[in-house]
Amino acid sequence: MASSTRTPEIQILAETDTTTFTIPDRLTIEQVAKRRAAYGSFNAGVAAAVDVELFKGRTHHSHKGKAKRWDHRLTHEAKVRQGNSLKTAAKHLKTPGLISLGGGLPSSEYFPFEELSITVPSLASLSPSQPNGHADTSTLKAGKNEILTAGKHDLAEGVSLYDIATACQYGQGHGAAQFLRWMIEHTEIVHNPPYRDWSCTMTIGSTSACDFAFRLFCNPGDWILTEQYTYPTMVVAAQGMGINIAAVGMDEHGMLATSLDDILSNWNVAERGGPKPFVVYTVPTGQNPTGFTQPLQRRKEIYAVAQKHDLYIFEDEPYYFLQMQPYTGANAPDVPPPTSHSDFIHSLVPSYLSLDVDGRVLRMDSFSKVIAPGSRVGWITASEQICEKYRMLSDLATQGPSGISQLVLFKLLDESWGHGGYLDWLIKIRMEYTERRDSILKACETYLPRDLVRWVAPSAGMFLWLEIDYKKHPHFADKTLLEIEEEIFLKNIAHGTLLMCGSWFVAEQKAGKDTLFFRATYAAAPADQINEAIKRFGAAIRESFGLAPLANGTH
Amino acid sequence: MASSTRTPEIQILAETDTTTFTIPDRLTIEQVAKRRAAYGSFNAGVAAAVDVELFKGRTHHSHKGKAKRWDHRLTHEAKVRQGNSLKTAAKHLKTPGLISLGGGLPSSEYFPFEELSITVPSLASLSPSQPNGHADTSTLKAGKNEILTAGKHDLAEGVSLYDIATACQYGQGHGAAQFLRWMIEHTEIVHNPPYRDWSCTMTIGSTSACDFAFRLFCNPGDWILTEQYTYPTMVVAAQGMGINIAAVGMDEHGMLATSLDDILSNWNVAERGGPKPFVVYTVPTGQNPTGFTQPLQRRKEIYAVAQKHDLYIFEDEPYYFLQMQPYTGANAPDVPPPTSHSDFIHSLVPSYLSLDVDGRVLRMDSFSKVIAPGSRVGWITASEQICEKYRMLSDLATQGPSGISQLVLFKLLDESWGHGGYLDWLIKIRMEYTERRDSILKACETYLPRDLVRWVAPSAGMFLWLEIDYKKHPHFADKTLLEIEEEIFLKNIAHGTLLMCGSWFVAEQKAGKDTLFFRATYAAAPADQINEAIKRFGAAIRESFGLAPLANGTH
Repeated sequence: MASSTRTPEIQILAETDTTTFTIPDRLTIEQVAKRRAAYGSFNAGVAAAVDVELFKGRTHHSHKGKAKRWDHRLTHEAKVRQGNSLKTAAKHLKTPGLISLGGGLPSSEYFPFEELSITVPSLASLSPSQPNGHADTSTLKAGKNEILTAGKHDLAEGVSLYDIATACQYGQGHGAAQFLRWMIEHTEIVHNPPYRDWSCTMTIGSTSACDFAFRLFCNPGDWILTEQYTYPTMVVAAQGMGINIAAVGMDEHGMLATSLDDILSNWNVAERGGPKPFVVYTVPTGQNPTGFTQPLQRRKEIYAVAQKHDLYIFEDEPYYFLQMQPYTGANAPDVPPPTSHSDFIHSLVPSYLSLDVDGRVLRMDSFSKVIAPGSRVGWITASEQICEKYRMLSDLATQGPSGISQLVLFKLLDESWGHGGYLDWLIKIRMEYTERRDSILKACETYLPRDLVRWVAPSAGMFLWLEIDYKKHPHFADKTLLEIEEEIFLKNIAHGTLLMCGSWFVAEQKAGKDTLFFRATYAAAPADQINEAIKRFGAAIRESFGLAPLANGTH
Repeated sequence: MASSTRTPEIQILAETDTTTFTIPDRLTIEQVAKRRAAYGSFNAGVAAAVDVELFKGRTHHSHKGKAKRWDHRLTHEAKVRQGNSLKTAAKHLKTPGLISLGGGLPSSEYFPFEELSITVPSLASLSPSQPNGHADTSTLKAGKNEILTAGKHDLAEGVSLYDIATACQYGQGHGAAQFLRWMIEHTEIVHNPPYRDWSCTMTIGSTSACDFAFRLFCNPGDWILTEQYTYPTMVVAAQGMGINIAAVGMDEHGMLATSLDDILSNWNVAERGGPKPFVVYTVPTGQNPTGFTQPLQRRKEIYAVAQKHDLYIFEDEPYYFLQMQPYTGANAPDVPPPTSHSDFIHSLVPSYLSLDVDGRVLRMDSFSKVIAPGSRVGWITASEQICEKYRMLSDLATQGPSGISQLVLFKLLDESWGHGGYLDWLIKIRMEYTERRDSILKACETYLPRDLVRWVAPSAGMFLWLEIDYKKHPHFADKTLLEIEEEIFLKNIAHGTLLMCGSWFVAEQKAGKDTLFFRATYAAAPADQINEAIKRFGAAIRESFGLAPLANGTH
């Protein structure tokens, strides 16, 4: 991809040994338990509004500064949005003895759900204290499950902090207080944002979070910056809102800080037909489609560029917890799995959020890759100013996530697993993905012609990005790059395997294209099918390039 | 409210006896069963795309025309939105033997949900064949429940058409095919839209549907038309998008066709600072906040105005199935409940959708008032052109409703209750709301001074709209209307009851205001508390107006 010499005026932070960096003062799981105990009884009823500060560690804040204000960057929509005017009445609801004929809420009598149960892997089954030193990945097959049950009036009856009557009722756009607390704690355990007034609010998933982020920050005619290969849904979503995409060069460590700085330093308003961008959208970990992960050093460089040009960063991180064990090659022994929660957390590349001293990051977290996409629940972390704007938009556009989804996730993540159980689950997922990635890499090493196909072992995510040396293709002289790509795509189909064309992921169509890629995922198919699919891909490539088939044949 | 003489050029359709109007060729529940059987096996897997036409009654279509095109009204966003470019690959997925390494879907192995169960009122318990001739309203208390269970792989195992593996996976913006089918059938049973190319697509609730409708039809600076008292969330949502609201006069039958026509016929672009509106937003049934319901005749008049001025209608109908039995007064016998599904359906005021020969209506349906708001699932019905635009926006903004919510509702509404059971449930809800409304009216008749407070018995919805004769208020000469309203609001609080101020629902703040209302809901509190709250309200009014308390005192 684009290579670029470093622009000297980027300030590179001092850190060089990225493996020893630790986020200071992270909240521990033990401290969460203590904090909850100190907080005393917690009772969030129907549509309870959250004071996020109550769930954050206040003693940690003394040394932190406040976030930058973004008033000069917000759209008209973000500026004029008001909260729901009926909330004027809400302050009176605490009057003792008051009978409210105010809110138009249906009585929970008429919710036709008396009880909801879900069968889930038990906390004990996830414990890392298994003979092999990590979570037992055969849990589900072994039936080590437990049943979690929510009743209609568990909250009123003191059985649980959340119940059907509350979850099935109207709620706040920020989500249920009891579950948002869990998200805030989790965020502090993993990221500990280094400014004082950070906040979280729930989303209905990161697709919607991205839509909202555009609505808050981007006007028609604006440009935003992103990786040169990127998530197409984001591109068409932006384009629909009249937002243009400027592609930033990448190397195997993802977005190049130097390219980002070059584009901004040399922005030509007349040529581009729009103002200098101030939003960068990035998927720093296991990026889609490349699978590339920005190491800490790269993140620091990009954050420095963001400071230099006063950028706001959309950090979209669905694959953050699909960070895997280091790849050791086909025949070397595996690296032992993390042995403790702390070990696991320290193995993760620090997020932009954890580097964000200025409050210039809106981080999007998602359960889609580690629990279930169909839950349509996620959350963002950003400064309170931005979260407040986000909440107002939620109240008027989505009304927050499904209460039924929230109830199911709350029972699982808060009541059953807790923070520790969730980390155990994430370790289990890490080991599963490590195995899947190792399978596909082994298949690639076995079946693909190395002089025609190149790849980098992914350290996170779902995707392997396979670069084809199309200059060696017999039709290089008489066909376009896209025609050759199409030919190989169809050859793959003829051989019974489907990979995605790299051109479908191009961020800026107008930019010249001189690389040819295919994207393969190792997330979905079982290991034996992954092996067979790559074998077929190898056969298709050989055929397309006019090479003899492998000696042991294909299908 | 505003009264206005009828503008003679409005064409009033011939129908005068509104009670005998029937929607022709409605689909019956029996026909649904036959159609499903004729359709044969139905298998919608992960993220299956729907061909809505397959679920509609094709034989009914021969005499229907096609919907008007709305290209000239769509926003830039609606026009340029493209579908997800990765769907190019989807057509190849049916290739026999193909192994896909394409879609980045997590394996359902890693969804930590093995089984989901919900306890719901059994179909038998809802049956109208109860001794009292209608659904047994003590069902829930009597424990006549059944447990519905979804397994992880029920679909693959042939146990059900929907399961956890499918519901928890990524889906389509239009929702799961198996549940959308139910919505389409229900729509044809109740409304039978009178044009050929109608379609349905799922929403995450009508708040979002309204946000989407604005995004598809309204540009900043546009005006839309709505009832002079309206739902404030809609107003602030519109304002945030730069959309202005023009208030249409009302009488006790809701929006006035004459007022609508006057405003449009006399629209002054210079004075208003915006083009003549072409969107009317209305809540025709049990309108919030007034509780007013437009009778059929009024709907026909308004539809005729819409045809005259080529308006597009947003029909927001959360209260449609909160239509109640006729109010007979405190001492008259009750009207017997509907004795059959057909009887029930014919008791409902026909929707705009059922009158919509042109395809100029986007109807929003919601489960919020009749199942549970927290489900965040609803649907729209409109022409295929508009539904297609809506689906594209869903794919890029919300990704459709929570799969967990869809699964729970599918198990209940399709697998357990079916269309008949759902209608039985709606009859039950109808009788419950009738009882609630009768309670509040009885309390009003008992405790409110009739010379100061006036109301109309609502025939649908959750709200009673109480008009105060503020001209008789002791402070009429020296206080503004809003000050008197505030005084009464606070007097209510002091007496231990909360009602909403009418001014909070004003659609067009700039319009002069010469009426004073309070909104009371009878949906939430139990009957005895409703009675007590109205008693307190009466006492507060008397005190505010300087009258002696009622002889039997207040609290």
